[in-house]
Amino acid sequence: MNKALISDYNNLLMADACFRSGKYKEKAYFDAFFRHIPDGGGYIVFAGLETIIDYIKKLKFDDEAIKQLKQCGGFSPEFLEYLRKFKFSGNIFAVKEGTPVFPNEPVITVHAPLIEALILETYILISITNQSTAATKASRIARVAGGREVIDFSARKSHGIHAAYNIARTAYIGGFTASNTTLAIAGYGIPHSGHMSHAWVQMFDSEYEAFRRYCELCPDKPELLVDTYSVLQSGIPNAIKVINEFLIPNGINNYSIRLDSGDITYLSKKARKMLDEAGLHECKITVSNSLDEYIIRDILLQGAQVDSFIVGEQISDSDKAGSVNAVYKLVAVESNGEIVPRIKRSENASKIPHPHYKKTYRLFDNETGTATADLLCVFDETIDEKKPLTIFDPDFTWKQKTLTNFHAEVLQHTIFKDGKCVFTTPDASEIREYCKDRLDTLWDEVKRFENPHNYYVDLSRKLWNIKNVLLKM
Amino acid sequence: MNKALISDYNNLLMADACFRSGKYKEKAYFDAFFRHIPDGGGYIVFAGLETIIDYIKKLKFDDEAIKQLKQCGGFSPEFLEYLRKFKFSGNIFAVKEGTPVFPNEPVITVHAPLIEALILETYILISITNQSTAATKASRIARVAGGREVIDFSARKSHGIHAAYNIARTAYIGGFTASNTTLAIAGYGIPHSGHMSHAWVQMFDSEYEAFRRYCELCPDKPELLVDTYSVLQSGIPNAIKVINEFLIPNGINNYSIRLDSGDITYLSKKARKMLDEAGLHECKITVSNSLDEYIIRDILLQGAQVDSFIVGEQISDSDKAGSVNAVYKLVAVESNGEIVPRIKRSENASKIPHPHYKKTYRLFDNETGTATADLLCVFDETIDEKKPLTIFDPDFTWKQKTLTNFHAEVLQHTIFKDGKCVFTTPDASEIREYCKDRLDTLWDEVKRFENPHNYYVDLSRKLWNIKNVLLKM
Repeated sequence: MNKALISDYNNLLMADACFRSGKYKEKAYFDAFFRHIPDGGGYIVFAGLETIIDYIKKLKFDDEAIKQLKQCGGFSPEFLEYLRKFKFSGNIFAVKEGTPVFPNEPVITVHAPLIEALILETYILISITNQSTAATKASRIARVAGGREVIDFSARKSHGIHAAYNIARTAYIGGFTASNTTLAIAGYGIPHSGHMSHAWVQMFDSEYEAFRRYCELCPDKPELLVDTYSVLQSGIPNAIKVINEFLIPNGINNYSIRLDSGDITYLSKKARKMLDEAGLHECKITVSNSLDEYIIRDILLQGAQVDSFIVGEQISDSDKAGSVNAVYKLVAVESNGEIVPRIKRSENASKIPHPHYKKTYRLFDNETGTATADLLCVFDETIDEKKPLTIFDPDFTWKQKTLTNFHAEVLQHTIFKDGKCVFTTPDASEIREYCKDRLDTLWDEVKRFENPHNYYVDLSRKLWNIKNVLLKM
Repeated sequence: MNKALISDYNNLLMADACFRSGKYKEKAYFDAFFRHIPDGGGYIVFAGLETIIDYIKKLKFDDEAIKQLKQCGGFSPEFLEYLRKFKFSGNIFAVKEGTPVFPNEPVITVHAPLIEALILETYILISITNQSTAATKASRIARVAGGREVIDFSARKSHGIHAAYNIARTAYIGGFTASNTTLAIAGYGIPHSGHMSHAWVQMFDSEYEAFRRYCELCPDKPELLVDTYSVLQSGIPNAIKVINEFLIPNGINNYSIRLDSGDITYLSKKARKMLDEAGLHECKITVSNSLDEYIIRDILLQGAQVDSFIVGEQISDSDKAGSVNAVYKLVAVESNGEIVPRIKRSENASKIPHPHYKKTYRLFDNETGTATADLLCVFDETIDEKKPLTIFDPDFTWKQKTLTNFHAEVLQHTIFKDGKCVFTTPDASEIREYCKDRLDTLWDEVKRFENPHNYYVDLSRKLWNIKNVLLKM
């Protein structure tokens, strides 16, 4: 499996045609953006840039790749020769990972010879789709957990090794506190968290013996899984026995029990009561069982007594997440040194991307510090923060708003300049902090699960005019 | 990223404890099985075995892996030393890829020292969850497409490189006819299919020029994407022009147009009419746009004129698929040379796995050739096909059925014997044929999308008795 071959076959075919047509040196601008917010939510947490940077830096069609492409068939010898020397030579502008973003605004812009931009498409979409979906879901779950531990346990339900690795990182960026994915613990220094499984309990002739041996062998924050036989009749009584007989006499006071089935609200309240009555107030309660933000919200509203949540498949393969539907569209071409905006007029109005090489400003209210709107402008437009700024809804243009006491921040940063990476990815923990800070600048109304306020993504007057002229052509 | 580290951190911690407890040489039996059928369907197409075989064959904790585990922290030096010499030594029995399977029956059984079985868990679950979900979805989509071409376009919406590669293969196994995933075209020889994208059309000053140049450069089955500007007003008229001016004079008669937006039923009928009126009866119509089995069923019922379907995110990241919820549970241990069944009695009745080292028979009606039921037996039970066999519902035991003219087939095959792989994975195209044949043995009632008949998965009297004794212990 040669990573260079991740480019879709049809993109390589078009790149080949592009090469033979002589058009391959012509430069274009491509925007990657999302069409939807998953779960009917109000924001997306952008993630996936790091893997894109890594991919582009290493992208090389070696002898093995060329040999495999020959086997596939359909490619011209000249094109394969071109690929052998391929090196990305363009510019990339992107939103920082951890930034909340919204549909239809560019998160990545590639400015490069057509042929290079075609080759990058597949991997850019793979990275941002999967990782932004996971980061968004994680952020929703971490928020609703209200400061309690949230542990990623998603590797076993992930779509392969890369997915497991990347999702553990993005879950952490989105606000999770630890991971069970060894690859990411090793690779990104994400805090780990270890858990007993039912197999451990079943290995022993009795639950008591299983707990006792585990505490002896793993005295660092032992977690006793109490639902293999009966939570209330054997699991918790055996846990209390072992805690009293072994952990407390040995001065170990960081330990927990875990519930993995049954009704979490009911059982966690009962468990808390039994532990408290035994004087084990410091014993924490961890829960797992196909948890997501909705279940966590509901059981906490019902008074569930939980210190840590373990989240698995809902982060790696959520059946509620839907898709962000990331796309990568040509928005402008260069012709005789000029940037010429291009549009795709599809039958579905919602599928028409905003044309042109753009710059996105996020507009903040200076009084409250909150983000009011994002404004997509033509690349050379600037905003004078000293003057009032009137923004308007691009569909219902009579809906207007004038901002006065505000400041504007450019969302995209230069990542590659003439093929060279000029951006240093921050540590996962720094991105995590940044994400938290940025989410704090969004109104609570945008972060609601049900029917959230639609954050404004508007077009500047100049860009709006250009788009409308192109639509009528 | 070291593939050996895909084992979950908690599994490695338990393996370490297992090693230090002296229990590591004790053997156990673990079953991997599915809890649910995605989409409320009637069957799962099993897939993922090939990647498991490959993983186990190559699994090695090299210096780099050991170094990374040290960095993670939490592991004993003795255990790391053990890992350095790790080699799988056990037996694995599995259902063949492409076999329709049902919830709660083992698809993979691992018989190995406890510690080895723990290390394999994560990757086994990753492989079978993702790939079986995709194969199942593909089989539903291919069936409803009724012999038309179905092309996998899922890489860009997949969860990473491994996922893209594996899903292209499993989609093919499930019945797709071709793929756009270069990795899988190269790696598995899956038929390819190339498509023009909107970027190609937008690169040129006119749609006509874009089509014309594409046909000149890619005369092998050219496909013209007609929805960049207006399908009916410009796309199809331009396509007809280029076909008449270039393809037909050059003797090229294998070509198509593609619709990627708008109402597929309406536009495909209109397109067919326009093409036929131009005498281009051989021009095929390909459609794409977030298609799944439900949309395909409905547009075909409405008379859509389609020759090929392109399917993307619904195969790699279906938001309707839900999860098969694959699990890996200890079902028996070896004690003094005897196999001792073990059970996990959870609070949720549905989460109680069938205990013991088992053998699954699929029972076929000799008259119709259809599969009647699967019967889970204790490993040493045999079935005498010459005698009537009475099977019963394990929950509602008064529901009984006596089979007479039938034959029984063992579903699991030996894959690893004493650590050595003894199974040769057939080609993807052979598995695809096998899958089709096996699906043909299922009643149509099982294959219905809505409210399908629940295929019977019963327990032998002997196994049922053992389970009930264990539950009451």
